[in-house]
Amino acid sequence: MKYLIFANRARKEGFENVERLFEAIAFAEFVHARNHFEALGSVKDTAENLQVAIDGEDWESEEMYPAYRAVAELQNESMAIRSIDFALQAEKFHSEFYARAKRAVESGRDIEIGEIYICEVYSYMADLKVERCPVCGAGSERFRKF
Amino acid sequence: MKYLIFANRARKEGFENVERLFEAIAFAEFVHARNHFEALGSVKDTAENLQVAIDGEDWESEEMYPAYRAVAELQNESMAIRSIDFALQAEKFHSEFYARAKRAVESGRDIEIGEIYICEVYSYMADLKVERCPVCGAGSERFRKF
Repeated sequence: MKYLIFANRARKEGFENVERLFEAIAFAEFVHARNHFEALGSVKDTAENLQVAIDGEDWESEEMYPAYRAVAELQNESMAIRSIDFALQAEKFHSEFYARAKRAVESGRDIEIGEIYICEVYSYMADLKVERCPVCGAGSERFRKF
Repeated sequence: MKYLIFANRARKEGFENVERLFEAIAFAEFVHARNHFEALGSVKDTAENLQVAIDGEDWESEEMYPAYRAVAELQNESMAIRSIDFALQAEKFHSEFYARAKRAVESGRDIEIGEIYICEVYSYMADLKVERCPVCGAGSERFRKF
Protein backbone atom coordinates (compact mmCIF):
# COMPACT_ATOMS: atom_id res chain seq x y z
CA MET A 1 0.00 0.00 0.00
CA LYS A 2 2.72 2.43 1.07
CA TYR A 3 4.78 1.81 -2.06
CA LEU A 4 1.76 2.34 -4.33
CA ILE A 5 1.05 5.62 -2.55
CA PHE A 6 4.71 6.63 -2.96
CA ALA A 7 4.48 5.61 -6.66
CA ASN A 8 1.61 8.10 -7.15
CA ARG A 9 3.67 10.81 -5.54
CA ALA A 10 6.74 10.02 -7.67
CA ARG A 11 4.62 10.35 -10.82
CA LYS A 12 3.36 13.76 -9.67
CA GLU A 13 7.01 14.85 -9.28
CA GLY A 14 7.85 13.58 -12.79
CA PHE A 15 9.97 10.58 -11.71
CA GLU A 16 8.36 7.92 -13.92
CA ASN A 17 11.07 5.33 -13.40
CA VAL A 18 10.89 5.71 -9.62
CA GLU A 19 7.13 5.26 -10.01
CA ARG A 20 7.70 1.96 -11.85
CA LEU A 21 10.26 0.86 -9.26
CA PHE A 22 7.77 1.44 -6.43
CA GLU A 23 5.07 -0.44 -8.36
CA ALA A 24 7.37 -3.38 -9.13
CA ILE A 25 8.49 -3.71 -5.51
CA ALA A 26 4.87 -3.35 -4.32
CA PHE A 27 4.12 -6.43 -6.45
CA ALA A 28 7.13 -8.24 -4.92
CA GLU A 29 5.69 -7.48 -1.48
CA PHE A 30 2.36 -8.91 -2.64
CA VAL A 31 4.19 -12.13 -3.57
CA HIS A 32 5.75 -12.24 -0.07
CA ALA A 33 2.38 -11.60 1.58
CA ARG A 34 0.72 -14.35 -0.47
CA ASN A 35 3.49 -16.86 0.35
CA HIS A 36 3.36 -16.04 4.06
CA PHE A 37 -0.45 -16.18 4.01
CA GLU A 38 -0.32 -19.61 2.34
CA ALA A 39 2.30 -20.84 4.83
CA LEU A 40 -0.13 -19.81 7.58
CA GLY A 41 -2.86 -21.92 5.93
CA SER A 42 -5.08 -18.83 5.63
CA VAL A 43 -6.21 -19.27 2.01
CA LYS A 44 -9.40 -21.37 2.07
CA ASP A 45 -11.92 -21.97 -0.67
CA THR A 46 -13.77 -18.99 -2.12
CA ALA A 47 -16.97 -19.38 -0.07
CA GLU A 48 -14.89 -19.35 3.13
CA ASN A 49 -12.68 -16.50 1.89
CA LEU A 50 -15.84 -14.46 1.23
CA GLN A 51 -16.98 -15.06 4.81
CA VAL A 52 -13.58 -13.87 6.08
CA ALA A 53 -14.03 -10.76 3.90
CA ILE A 54 -17.59 -10.14 5.20
CA ASP A 55 -16.49 -10.53 8.83
CA GLY A 56 -13.58 -8.14 8.26
CA GLU A 57 -15.74 -5.49 6.61
CA ASP A 58 -18.42 -5.74 9.31
CA TRP A 59 -15.83 -5.44 12.06
CA GLU A 60 -14.39 -2.36 10.37
CA SER A 61 -17.74 -0.58 10.00
CA GLU A 62 -19.19 -1.66 13.37
CA GLU A 63 -16.16 -1.53 15.66
CA MET A 64 -12.88 -0.34 14.20
CA TYR A 65 -13.90 2.85 12.40
CA PRO A 66 -16.40 4.00 15.07
CA ALA A 67 -13.57 3.77 17.62
CA TYR A 68 -11.13 5.61 15.33
CA ARG A 69 -13.81 8.23 14.67
CA ALA A 70 -14.35 8.90 18.37
CA VAL A 71 -10.64 9.60 18.80
CA ALA A 72 -10.49 11.79 15.67
CA GLU A 73 -13.48 13.79 16.97
CA LEU A 74 -11.90 14.15 20.41
CA GLN A 75 -8.74 15.46 18.75
CA ASN A 76 -10.66 17.66 16.30
CA GLU A 77 -8.97 16.06 13.28
CA SER A 78 -11.40 17.03 10.52
CA MET A 79 -9.38 15.46 7.68
CA ALA A 80 -9.23 12.16 9.56
CA ILE A 81 -12.97 12.29 10.32
CA ARG A 82 -13.75 12.77 6.64
CA SER A 83 -11.40 9.99 5.57
CA ILE A 84 -12.92 7.65 8.20
CA ASP A 85 -16.54 8.50 7.32
CA PHE A 86 -16.08 7.74 3.63
CA ALA A 87 -14.27 4.49 4.36
CA LEU A 88 -16.84 3.40 6.94
CA GLN A 89 -19.69 3.93 4.47
CA ALA A 90 -17.83 2.04 1.75
CA GLU A 91 -17.18 -0.99 3.97
CA LYS A 92 -20.94 -1.49 4.37
CA PHE A 93 -21.35 -1.72 0.59
CA HIS A 94 -18.38 -4.08 0.37
CA SER A 95 -19.98 -6.37 2.92
CA GLU A 96 -23.24 -6.45 0.94
CA PHE A 97 -21.48 -7.24 -2.34
CA TYR A 98 -19.46 -10.00 -0.67
CA ALA A 99 -22.65 -11.45 0.84
CA ARG A 100 -24.27 -11.54 -2.62
CA ALA A 101 -21.15 -13.25 -3.98
CA LYS A 102 -21.17 -15.79 -1.17
CA ARG A 103 -24.82 -16.74 -1.80
CA ALA A 104 -24.00 -17.28 -5.48
CA VAL A 105 -20.84 -19.31 -4.84
CA GLU A 106 -22.61 -21.51 -2.30
CA SER A 107 -25.15 -22.34 -5.03
CA GLY A 108 -22.26 -23.26 -7.32
CA ARG A 109 -22.65 -20.13 -9.46
CA ASP A 110 -20.57 -17.04 -10.07
CA ILE A 111 -22.03 -13.72 -8.90
CA GLU A 112 -23.98 -11.94 -11.66
CA ILE A 113 -22.41 -8.54 -11.90
CA GLY A 114 -21.43 -6.26 -14.77
CA GLU A 115 -18.57 -3.81 -14.83
CA ILE A 116 -17.65 -2.48 -11.40
CA TYR A 117 -16.54 1.14 -10.99
CA ILE A 118 -14.57 2.52 -8.03
CA CYS A 119 -14.10 6.26 -7.55
CA GLU A 120 -10.43 6.95 -6.86
CA VAL A 121 -11.20 9.91 -4.59
CA TYR A 122 -13.24 8.30 -1.79
CA SER A 123 -13.80 4.82 -3.25
CA TYR A 124 -17.53 5.13 -4.05
CA MET A 125 -18.53 1.85 -5.70
CA ALA A 126 -21.04 1.45 -8.52
CA ASP A 127 -21.94 -1.45 -10.77
CA LEU A 128 -23.23 0.86 -13.48
CA LYS A 129 -21.25 3.61 -15.12
CA VAL A 130 -22.08 6.93 -13.47
CA GLU A 131 -21.59 10.44 -14.86
CA ARG A 132 -20.40 11.90 -11.58
CA CYS A 133 -19.57 10.43 -8.20
CA PRO A 134 -22.67 11.08 -6.03
CA VAL A 135 -20.41 11.30 -2.96
CA CYS A 136 -17.59 13.62 -4.01
CA GLY A 137 -18.71 14.93 -7.43
CA ALA A 138 -15.68 13.52 -9.29
CA GLY A 139 -16.21 12.98 -13.04
CA SER A 140 -16.36 9.55 -14.63
CA GLU A 141 -12.67 9.79 -15.64
CA ARG A 142 -11.81 9.40 -11.94
CA PHE A 143 -13.51 6.01 -11.80
CA ARG A 144 -11.49 2.87 -12.29
CA LYS A 145 -13.24 0.02 -14.09
CA PHE A 146 -12.99 -3.63 -13.05
CA MET B 1 -3.36 -7.86 0.02
CA LYS B 2 -5.84 -10.38 1.39
CA TYR B 3 -8.45 -9.53 -1.24
CA LEU B 4 -5.91 -9.87 -4.07
CA ILE B 5 -4.90 -13.28 -2.70
CA PHE B 6 -8.58 -14.27 -2.50
CA ALA B 7 -9.05 -12.98 -6.09
CA ASN B 8 -6.35 -15.40 -7.30
CA ARG B 9 -8.08 -18.23 -5.53
CA ALA B 10 -11.50 -17.30 -6.99
CA ARG B 11 -9.99 -17.38 -10.50
CA LYS B 12 -8.59 -20.86 -9.86
CA GLU B 13 -12.10 -21.99 -8.88
CA GLY B 14 -13.58 -20.46 -12.07
CA PHE B 15 -15.43 -17.56 -10.38
CA GLU B 16 -14.25 -14.75 -12.65
CA ASN B 17 -16.81 -12.22 -11.43
CA VAL B 18 -15.90 -12.88 -7.81
CA GLU B 19 -12.28 -12.38 -8.85
CA ARG B 20 -13.17 -8.95 -10.30
CA LEU B 21 -15.18 -8.07 -7.20
CA PHE B 22 -12.20 -8.85 -4.93
CA GLU B 23 -9.90 -6.80 -7.20
CA ALA B 24 -12.29 -3.83 -7.28
CA ILE B 25 -12.69 -3.79 -3.50
CA ALA B 26 -8.92 -4.22 -3.06
CA PHE B 27 -8.56 -0.97 -5.04
CA ALA B 28 -11.21 0.69 -2.85
CA GLU B 29 -9.16 -0.32 0.19
CA PHE B 30 -6.09 1.22 -1.45
CA VAL B 31 -8.05 4.49 -1.77
CA HIS B 32 -8.91 4.33 1.95
CA ALA B 33 -5.31 3.59 2.90
CA ARG B 34 -4.05 6.51 0.78
CA ASN B 35 -6.58 8.92 2.29
CA HIS B 36 -5.78 7.83 5.85
CA PHE B 37 -2.02 8.00 5.10
CA GLU B 38 -2.45 11.53 3.74
CA ALA B 39 -4.55 12.55 6.76
CA LEU B 40 -1.65 11.33 8.92
CA GLY B 41 0.74 13.58 6.98
CA SER B 42 2.83 10.55 6.00
CA VAL B 43 3.25 11.27 2.29
CA LYS B 44 6.41 13.38 1.91
CA ASP B 45 8.38 14.20 -1.21
CA THR B 46 9.89 11.36 -3.19
CA ALA B 47 13.42 11.61 -1.76
CA GLU B 48 11.99 11.33 1.75
CA ASN B 49 9.58 8.56 0.74
CA LEU B 50 12.54 6.60 -0.65
CA GLN B 51 14.34 6.93 2.69
CA VAL B 52 11.23 5.63 4.47
CA ALA B 53 11.24 2.69 2.04
CA ILE B 54 14.97 2.00 2.59
CA ASP B 55 14.58 2.11 6.38
CA GLY B 56 11.59 -0.25 6.19
CA GLU B 57 13.39 -2.76 3.96
CA ASP B 58 16.53 -2.69 6.13
CA TRP B 59 14.48 -3.21 9.29
CA GLU B 60 12.74 -6.17 7.67
CA SER B 61 15.94 -7.88 6.55
CA GLU B 62 18.00 -7.05 9.66
CA GLU B 63 15.46 -7.38 12.45
CA MET B 64 11.96 -8.49 11.54
CA TYR B 65 12.60 -11.52 9.35
CA PRO B 66 15.55 -12.87 11.39
CA ALA B 67 13.25 -12.84 14.46
CA TYR B 68 10.42 -14.54 12.53
CA ARG B 69 12.91 -17.07 11.16
CA ALA B 70 14.15 -18.01 14.65
CA VAL B 71 10.57 -18.77 15.72
CA ALA B 72 9.82 -20.72 12.51
CA GLU B 73 12.98 -22.79 13.09
CA LEU B 74 12.08 -23.43 16.71
CA GLN B 75 8.66 -24.65 15.58
CA ASN B 76 10.08 -26.62 12.64
CA GLU B 77 7.85 -24.82 10.13
CA SER B 78 9.71 -25.54 6.89
CA MET B 79 7.20 -23.78 4.62
CA ALA B 80 7.43 -20.63 6.74
CA ILE B 81 11.24 -20.80 6.77
CA ARG B 82 11.32 -20.97 2.97
CA SER B 83 8.83 -18.13 2.60
CA ILE B 84 10.82 -15.99 5.06
CA ASP B 85 14.20 -16.74 3.45
CA PHE B 86 13.08 -15.71 -0.02
CA ALA B 87 11.46 -12.53 1.29
CA LEU B 88 14.48 -11.63 3.41
CA GLN B 89 16.80 -11.96 0.43
CA ALA B 90 14.48 -9.88 -1.76
CA GLU B 91 14.27 -7.03 0.76
CA LYS B 92 18.04 -6.53 0.48
CA PHE B 93 17.74 -6.00 -3.27
CA HIS B 94 14.80 -3.64 -2.76
CA SER B 95 16.86 -1.56 -0.39
CA GLU B 96 19.71 -1.30 -2.93
CA PHE B 97 17.36 -0.28 -5.74
CA TYR B 98 15.71 2.32 -3.52
CA ALA B 99 19.13 3.68 -2.53
CA ARG B 100 20.07 4.05 -6.22
CA ALA B 101 16.76 5.82 -6.83
CA LYS B 102 17.33 8.16 -3.89
CA ARG B 103 20.79 9.18 -5.13
CA ALA B 104 19.30 9.99 -8.54
CA VAL B 105 16.33 11.94 -7.16
CA GLU B 106 18.57 13.95 -4.84
CA SER B 107 20.54 15.01 -7.92
CA GLY B 108 17.27 16.08 -9.54
CA ARG B 109 17.24 13.13 -11.97
CA ASP B 110 15.06 10.06 -12.41
CA ILE B 111 16.70 6.67 -11.78
CA GLU B 112 18.09 5.15 -14.99
CA ILE B 113 16.48 1.76 -15.19
CA GLY B 114 14.96 -0.31 -17.99
CA GLU B 115 12.13 -2.78 -17.69
CA ILE B 116 11.87 -4.38 -14.26
CA TYR B 117 10.83 -8.04 -13.94
CA ILE B 118 9.44 -9.64 -10.77
CA CYS B 119 9.04 -13.42 -10.49
CA GLU B 120 5.57 -14.18 -9.20
CA VAL B 121 6.74 -17.30 -7.34
CA TYR B 122 9.27 -15.89 -4.87
CA SER B 123 9.57 -12.29 -6.12
CA TYR B 124 13.08 -12.51 -7.62
CA MET B 125 13.78 -9.11 -9.18
CA ALA B 126 15.71 -8.48 -12.39
CA ASP B 127 16.16 -5.42 -14.52
CA LEU B 128 16.91 -7.49 -17.63
CA LYS B 129 14.66 -10.13 -19.06
CA VAL B 130 15.75 -13.57 -17.85
CA GLU B 131 15.01 -16.97 -19.38
CA ARG B 132 14.45 -18.68 -16.05
CA CYS B 133 14.30 -17.48 -12.46
CA PRO B 134 17.74 -18.26 -10.96
CA VAL B 135 16.09 -18.72 -7.56
CA CYS B 136 13.11 -21.01 -8.23
CA GLY B 137 13.54 -22.04 -11.88
CA ALA B 138 10.22 -20.52 -13.04
CA GLY B 139 10.04 -19.70 -16.76
CA SER B 140 9.93 -16.14 -18.09
CA GLU B 141 6.09 -16.33 -18.41
CA ARG B 142 5.95 -16.24 -14.61
CA PHE B 143 7.69 -12.84 -14.53
CA ARG B 144 5.60 -9.68 -14.40
CA LYS B 145 7.01 -6.70 -16.27
CA PHE B 146 6.98 -3.15 -14.90
